[in-house]
Amino acid sequence: MTIDWENYLSDEAKLREPSVMKMMGRFGKIISLGAGLPHPDCFPIKNISIDSLSPNSNFIKTESNSVHMDDKDEKLYEALQYTSGRGTSYLDPWCHDHIEKYHKPKYNDWDSLLSAGATQSLESVLRLLCNSNEDTILSEELTYPAFLETCKPLRIKVIPIKVDSDGACPSSIDYILSNWNELYPNNSLKKPKLFYTMPVGQNPLGSTMPLKRREDIYKICQKHNIIIIEDDPYYHLQLDCLNGSDPLPSLLNFDNDGRVIRFDSFSKILMPGSRCSFITANKVFIEKLTRHNEVNIHSSAAPSQLILHELIKNWDSNGNDGFEKWLNYLKIHYFKRRKLLNDEFEKYLPKKLCCWNFPNSGMFLWIDIIMSQWPIPSNLKLTHIEWVKLLEDTIFDTNVEKGVLLAKGHWFMVDSELDRIGFRATFAFADEIEFSGASERFADSLNSVYEKFYGVKP
Amino acid sequence: MTIDWENYLSDEAKLREPSVMKMMGRFGKIISLGAGLPHPDCFPIKNISIDSLSPNSNFIKTESNSVHMDDKDEKLYEALQYTSGRGTSYLDPWCHDHIEKYHKPKYNDWDSLLSAGATQSLESVLRLLCNSNEDTILSEELTYPAFLETCKPLRIKVIPIKVDSDGACPSSIDYILSNWNELYPNNSLKKPKLFYTMPVGQNPLGSTMPLKRREDIYKICQKHNIIIIEDDPYYHLQLDCLNGSDPLPSLLNFDNDGRVIRFDSFSKILMPGSRCSFITANKVFIEKLTRHNEVNIHSSAAPSQLILHELIKNWDSNGNDGFEKWLNYLKIHYFKRRKLLNDEFEKYLPKKLCCWNFPNSGMFLWIDIIMSQWPIPSNLKLTHIEWVKLLEDTIFDTNVEKGVLLAKGHWFMVDSELDRIGFRATFAFADEIEFSGASERFADSLNSVYEKFYGVKP
Repeated sequence: MTIDWENYLSDEAKLREPSVMKMMGRFGKIISLGAGLPHPDCFPIKNISIDSLSPNSNFIKTESNSVHMDDKDEKLYEALQYTSGRGTSYLDPWCHDHIEKYHKPKYNDWDSLLSAGATQSLESVLRLLCNSNEDTILSEELTYPAFLETCKPLRIKVIPIKVDSDGACPSSIDYILSNWNELYPNNSLKKPKLFYTMPVGQNPLGSTMPLKRREDIYKICQKHNIIIIEDDPYYHLQLDCLNGSDPLPSLLNFDNDGRVIRFDSFSKILMPGSRCSFITANKVFIEKLTRHNEVNIHSSAAPSQLILHELIKNWDSNGNDGFEKWLNYLKIHYFKRRKLLNDEFEKYLPKKLCCWNFPNSGMFLWIDIIMSQWPIPSNLKLTHIEWVKLLEDTIFDTNVEKGVLLAKGHWFMVDSELDRIGFRATFAFADEIEFSGASERFADSLNSVYEKFYGVKP
Repeated sequence: MTIDWENYLSDEAKLREPSVMKMMGRFGKIISLGAGLPHPDCFPIKNISIDSLSPNSNFIKTESNSVHMDDKDEKLYEALQYTSGRGTSYLDPWCHDHIEKYHKPKYNDWDSLLSAGATQSLESVLRLLCNSNEDTILSEELTYPAFLETCKPLRIKVIPIKVDSDGACPSSIDYILSNWNELYPNNSLKKPKLFYTMPVGQNPLGSTMPLKRREDIYKICQKHNIIIIEDDPYYHLQLDCLNGSDPLPSLLNFDNDGRVIRFDSFSKILMPGSRCSFITANKVFIEKLTRHNEVNIHSSAAPSQLILHELIKNWDSNGNDGFEKWLNYLKIHYFKRRKLLNDEFEKYLPKKLCCWNFPNSGMFLWIDIIMSQWPIPSNLKLTHIEWVKLLEDTIFDTNVEKGVLLAKGHWFMVDSELDRIGFRATFAFADEIEFSGASERFADSLNSVYEKFYGVKP
């Protein structure tokens, strides 16, 4: 790690220092009248038990495990008491081990840190690196709405990067950064130092960067000295990697500069309610994020940390690789759902009017409306972009009328004038029995909107 | 509520809008291929059971209660799934009811909102109302370090308010605000619109504002149109209000303008690890804070919400007022501890060199070093302030050497040049059996530092 990452910190982050209240834990075993922690006798909860699906029955039956207040390892006590900015002594090292096992960065000075869900990770990282009204950030031209909704109030301008079926195009990044001063003359906009990307099962397009694309993306970011935020909630949902076949290496795995900030989350694989996730990055960034934790969230809620750790520890006991088996179980579950929804789309959707991807990862099918089939109706006096928005809104509203909800493309667009209409459909949430009805309704909606605008059936 | 609180929002908060991903929940019962939530079948946890001290045995024995995945009220499902920015359907209304029961604001348009601990509440409220490098905030001249540590990186200047044994002095607030343009001429500093205060068991001084002081504080803030942040973790630890005798009314209770933003926390009364707290304020502020939650923490972790709610619901079942009984149990616990530590201080501490308060609330004794007894030693060429800091540091270090930790006054000072030396001692955390040893060591430390500087015993 040869880059001095201190220089990349925001004005806010530069001013962060260790919290004195958290420092009081560092004086070792002396009598403490220092930190205002409640005494353990003041915690009314003395045991927490969890019943969870067990790998011993291939996740059909449950098994129980309990954590007692008087257990020697004090796990429950830690889950009830204030924690440090690093979280509990059990889940904190688990995160580090997880990264070591799956992602192995190519440099030494990296670290992981628990946070309160990936959106909280994202906000804290943007505040770590960006000044309001000054910094800018690259992202796929269609991206996660909460990312856009975080950047807007922070007044961080997002610069869209072209995408193809393999995800963000390195050539688009190179073009924009190589021609920055021509594109934004007179220093009207500061050159970006960040690229926010979802390399697996991209939200909303469902695309996954293949190996070569990953290499190219990392290289182009190296060339322009760009920090990569790798938001990767679907890493463990690479649905064609069943039964232990290797998933794609993460961008973090390529990293030898400390330029990748990776987000892992328990939300898509265990329980989103836990608000538990972790950030992996170079130690300069993790140190400042820890300081921020100390005076903000402290850490993700400790009972969540306890429950997640007990669940995984129990699964992995007796040499069982139960956590890996659970991931495989999930992949099979979503593998089936993906096929089911795709089959119903094949059966019902009008292929003249729309087309869609078959994603190899994640939770989303993306349906593009084939614009050449939807010219501006002659009776409407609209610009092209006005028509694009009207058509998307009309299809969306008709979907809702007919009783099916899909997310509409403009929610995901960095540039609201992008010349594209699409819808995101997830196969994760609805009951499988509803996929057929949903597809029929969506097809019905497309056909009836077509008839409404053109007076004929498609 | 006649004030237009929209005008008080920060630039950041003005730009916050509802999150589209969270809006997707609002389309009612149609088939959703919209939001990317995991299917309930993908949650491995099927039951959570808690054993907790029961009011039926005066909190000596535990009782169990369980929450199953297939319970009709779907409480466990809610605790595992994504929540809205308002949190779970059970703890969200509980917070509102709690405020209604204990604090009853004098206006209608108020609301409460769950957050991830009081420090997270504080940061989000400062970001709601303050622009960096521009806004300023009043606080007691000795205050909670995490407040100072939050303001510093956010570049919000803190203006110290004089305190006496009843807490912040209204006359000091009035003087500063009435003479602002003379004190900070040429618009060098923006006039504050906020006052951060801890009216009960103030950290670190342990002071509690009596009724008259509360009236005066509210009035003076009304006069100068100041928003009050009432950080009140020790409200339920008014230790002389045992067995149902009335606690002091909160500042929120006086509020008829919507100018009080109140923080309640479960940390000091149930479990700090939960990272669960709530903010009460006018609906304009709560609306914007909810929007921020949606793209940041979502809410406090849902398993924490479940555990807290089940605990309290179970205590309060069958017409039992178990929660109120628990608060009384806690007050008795800390009442005893306060007396014990004070007795040991009486026994050991050199009253010539120091004096301390006997707080009626909270967790802290504050020990003032009597400066008139500690003149600058003739052999030291120091300014008065250099001596003040040297003496405090020397006592602190000697304490640690002798094996007792107290928090030192300068950690709490808005102005590091304040002419005061003191230490904060908490009676909450150490085992009671250690109070005697701690007091003896602290006394020993004071005496030996005196002897070190003056060559004679005190």
